[in-house]
Amino acid sequence: MIQSVAFIGLGAMGYRMASHLPKHFDTVYVWNRNFEKAKQHANEYGTQAVKLEQAVQADVIFSCLPTSTDVENLIESLQLKPGTIWVDCTSGVPDSARTLSETLKAQNVDYLDAPVSGQTIGAENATLTVMVGGDAAAFERAYPAMQAIGKLIKHVGTSGAGFAVKAVNNMLLAVNLWSVAEGFTALKAHGVNLNEALDCINASSGKSGVTETVLPQRVLNRSFPVTFALPLLAKDTGIALDLLQSAKLPAPVIGLTQSLIQAASATADENSDFSAAVKFYESWSKITLE
Amino acid sequence: MIQSVAFIGLGAMGYRMASHLPKHFDTVYVWNRNFEKAKQHANEYGTQAVKLEQAVQADVIFSCLPTSTDVENLIESLQLKPGTIWVDCTSGVPDSARTLSETLKAQNVDYLDAPVSGQTIGAENATLTVMVGGDAAAFERAYPAMQAIGKLIKHVGTSGAGFAVKAVNNMLLAVNLWSVAEGFTALKAHGVNLNEALDCINASSGKSGVTETVLPQRVLNRSFPVTFALPLLAKDTGIALDLLQSAKLPAPVIGLTQSLIQAASATADENSDFSAAVKFYESWSKITLE
Amino acid sequence: MIQSVAFIGLGAMGYRMASHLPKHFDTVYVWNRNFEKAKQHANEYGTQAVKLEQAVQADVIFSCLPTSTDVENLIESLQLKPGTIWVDCTSGVPDSARTLSETLKAQNVDYLDAPVSGQTIGAENATLTVMVGGDAAAFERAYPAMQAIGKLIKHVGTSGAGFAVKAVNNMLLAVNLWSVAEGFTALKAHGVNLNEALDCINASSGKSGVTETVLPQRVLNRSFPVTFALPLLAKDTGIALDLLQSAKLPAPVIGLTQSLIQAASATADENSDFSAAVKFYESWSKITLE
Amino acid sequence: MIQSVAFIGLGAMGYRMASHLPKHFDTVYVWNRNFEKAKQHANEYGTQAVKLEQAVQADVIFSCLPTSTDVENLIESLQLKPGTIWVDCTSGVPDSARTLSETLKAQNVDYLDAPVSGQTIGAENATLTVMVGGDAAAFERAYPAMQAIGKLIKHVGTSGAGFAVKAVNNMLLAVNLWSVAEGFTALKAHGVNLNEALDCINASSGKSGVTETVLPQRVLNRSFPVTFALPLLAKDTGIALDLLQSAKLPAPVIGLTQSLIQAASATADENSDFSAAVKFYESWSKITLE
Repeated sequence: MIQSVAFIGLGAMGYRMASHLPKHFDTVYVWNRNFEKAKQHANEYGTQAVKLEQAVQADVIFSCLPTSTDVENLIESLQLKPGTIWVDCTSGVPDSARTLSETLKAQNVDYLDAPVSGQTIGAENATLTVMVGGDAAAFERAYPAMQAIGKLIKHVGTSGAGFAVKAVNNMLLAVNLWSVAEGFTALKAHGVNLNEALDCINASSGKSGVTETVLPQRVLNRSFPVTFALPLLAKDTGIALDLLQSAKLPAPVIGLTQSLIQAASATADENSDFSAAVKFYESWSKITLE
Repeated sequence: MIQSVAFIGLGAMGYRMASHLPKHFDTVYVWNRNFEKAKQHANEYGTQAVKLEQAVQADVIFSCLPTSTDVENLIESLQLKPGTIWVDCTSGVPDSARTLSETLKAQNVDYLDAPVSGQTIGAENATLTVMVGGDAAAFERAYPAMQAIGKLIKHVGTSGAGFAVKAVNNMLLAVNLWSVAEGFTALKAHGVNLNEALDCINASSGKSGVTETVLPQRVLNRSFPVTFALPLLAKDTGIALDLLQSAKLPAPVIGLTQSLIQAASATADENSDFSAAVKFYESWSKITLE
Repeated sequence: MIQSVAFIGLGAMGYRMASHLPKHFDTVYVWNRNFEKAKQHANEYGTQAVKLEQAVQADVIFSCLPTSTDVENLIESLQLKPGTIWVDCTSGVPDSARTLSETLKAQNVDYLDAPVSGQTIGAENATLTVMVGGDAAAFERAYPAMQAIGKLIKHVGTSGAGFAVKAVNNMLLAVNLWSVAEGFTALKAHGVNLNEALDCINASSGKSGVTETVLPQRVLNRSFPVTFALPLLAKDTGIALDLLQSAKLPAPVIGLTQSLIQAASATADENSDFSAAVKFYESWSKITLE
Repeated sequence: MIQSVAFIGLGAMGYRMASHLPKHFDTVYVWNRNFEKAKQHANEYGTQAVKLEQAVQADVIFSCLPTSTDVENLIESLQLKPGTIWVDCTSGVPDSARTLSETLKAQNVDYLDAPVSGQTIGAENATLTVMVGGDAAAFERAYPAMQAIGKLIKHVGTSGAGFAVKAVNNMLLAVNLWSVAEGFTALKAHGVNLNEALDCINASSGKSGVTETVLPQRVLNRSFPVTFALPLLAKDTGIALDLLQSAKLPAPVIGLTQSLIQAASATADENSDFSAAVKFYESWSKITLE
């Protein structure tokens, strides 16, 4: 039974995710590179801001960092105790998950790749979707801890499978975003009422998460709130494309979309939301989606 | 006020759509090239199977034919009475709508392009979405007739706008279908559990009509039921691409998808559902989505 | 036998092409919208700058205008004499050639679509390649006139075939240019010596007109001399793509390239050489091809 | 000064390349996995078929194997003598070259990646192009040996640069091949005379190695002689794409072409020439390029 839990990485997602843990577990350690954030979290939610070495004494360790490389560097510097489960909520690289899983297994530590979706609002409400790869028994043991932060928690396969599903999800998001930009620009060019068109499509077979939320809430109102950075989407589409290429699968549409998102990210303002990829397409015509 | 209504073209969609009209209008004419279908409809629903010349005496004329060319040929052969409204539910070509609208206006007849979405089940339950282009006053006058077959009925712009929205909707369907095929094949190649992955994505930002219904109900169960033929999807993606090109808009993702759907259609079994485009991608690897 | 020849459209190409005609024909009329150019040509080369109405009295009329629309407008305004051959060296639209050919045939005038390649240097030296579509007998009759301006003069098919070949040639130029930009940027990113690499490729299977002349003479030396405007290349790639689409042929690579060239043209400085499309790709990285 | 030379890998290319070495060097060892080939070579050209352990005692060792993995496996099994230069003519992977170069440097052995182009005819006539990456001094020392087999021998950069240039060359070949297939199919669909069109394009800016030799000598005559296998082209385009991705460069056209060549290879007859990629595109229409 899980007695203690730690959360490493208190970014926009992690800060909110970790806030739920004290409701379910007596001992909750938090740690963050910028340690002020950890202290603030302890004050706000009754967690314990501790040194990294102490944090990793917990039964279950969550991490939520920008990239797999960050997680690798962190783990390399640590001595973990046998029996621990590391639940990595980073949107990471499947190959890294497999390597970390093997490395930690030698120390009798289980590693689960457990990326989440649902954005900050889902983190706030503990309604995240958690897609988990790794050992099935470890998944069962860590389930109560993951339940504290998520609603739909699925074991999707062996090590790396969680990262793979997250990458494909974000790639589909990217494909939908880009094709909606092309399609709605065409509609505007032909004088169609975009809001009415959107209502129709959202009641039809072409609908998607992009038409239902991204387009009306971020693009058409020109707000582009920065909740998921464009370079991170570019990173994720790169991970998805790698999945296809390492399996020697042709990837015409996914490969092209990855190039376009990469180019959009490279030319965008530094602090851009993923939805701002639309602006890259807009720069090719005189038409703005609004 | 609308006294009489006609429905021309009793295919899989039209047959069901026309079935609701007698509940709302005293006089309902039906006509079909294969006239036996019209007689069967009259028997089943109490409509009147009449000659085309008589059918077009109705106040509102619906048509639902395979292509705009079919509608053009039909209209060319007819003498319409002034004041009539022609509501064309074909998934047609915007340019054709503009031409027909102009031509019929000279005869004091209004033409609305009013394609529908919602498939046969929506036609059966009168819950179709109707996206309408054309004169606003004619839209208002024809509204009660369209209400008999649809739930969401939207005036999206001037002549051709309805066809444009439908084409973009179907293009987004095609893009989603193809990219899901690539993405889920990659997941399968890496040993991911597809059903669990699908649950996760349907709770996440990458979801779409394709992940919610097409993938589980047509592809993963290998049923590919023929309710919307692949060549018609290829036709619709072609219409969508034409929208971009006539507006001189770059269309990297939509253009590529159109080529792939066209190739899939050209190489598919003659009577293939649109979802069978997935099989074209599958033929490039040893992996089947199931 | 050809007694008189006219040349309409004294742009960068036409001015040079027309300069050779007096060596072969007694009467050579020239005309240009900006008539000063025509007078200058007459002074320089001994041609006759005349009114358009007189120019078109010639046995063979050459035209070299920016687009097919320009030629159509011009011809519509004219009364041609029976027996004339119109040799249109514009890089035009195949459909336009077919229409003009039919229209003029009714006036007993032959129309040949006869676009040229070889750039201004080829025009200067009368070494152009002329790709000709239209009636075979008319081709034979006009051959001596075309011989005055070109070296390789080919009858490639019926009306529109000349324009089609030119469009495909320019599309291949565009594909080669774009893919060379991608490939050589990758080489530079990996520290390869571009000039040595270019020598190797020009002795290998990947060589093209782009690697042999465009890359060394326009791009790597950063000169981008404006001899063939980028918007005109975008127009020509559009014509090529139309050829595929009107034949219902999938066009994955050509379609994508057309979108990229169109986007490059839309975002380029107004007066850009076609080779400046490379700069559009360069804007996606920090790497310049030099 | 080079006294002895070895050649490892007597395939279609290697067999011919090694045949020139006895004209320039007293001692020439040859080795091949299927050793009968080595003995046959010794008989035919006066080389010495020896055990691998003896072959690698030569001052300069050439290798020409299918993939970098083959070379790695071979080298791993061997003890090389200090001062040797290994000249690897495989069409290999840049990363592999860098690793091998480092590994062998520790044994005081120089490794040069030195892929060749020019096909079997170039190997036969010792007119190959050799693009060489690695240490400049080693390049100078190995130059006389490479001169025995090639005409244009270029030092293009540090380790891996040779492989990179070869991969980009073959990618450009692939792009040209595919786009020519699209373009010429369009011309044929519109009734254009392909041979005349080819003459025109070969005198124009759209020309390439593909239009000059591949199309007339392999495709239009439907010979598709198997001199360079399609799966090897797919491998090389994959290497080229990796170059772009590892440098985080968008690769819209190269990425798409890689997917298409991969799909063509996956669906082609097992023993297909690279030029047979055209048949994959042909399968999407009823049109054959002949």
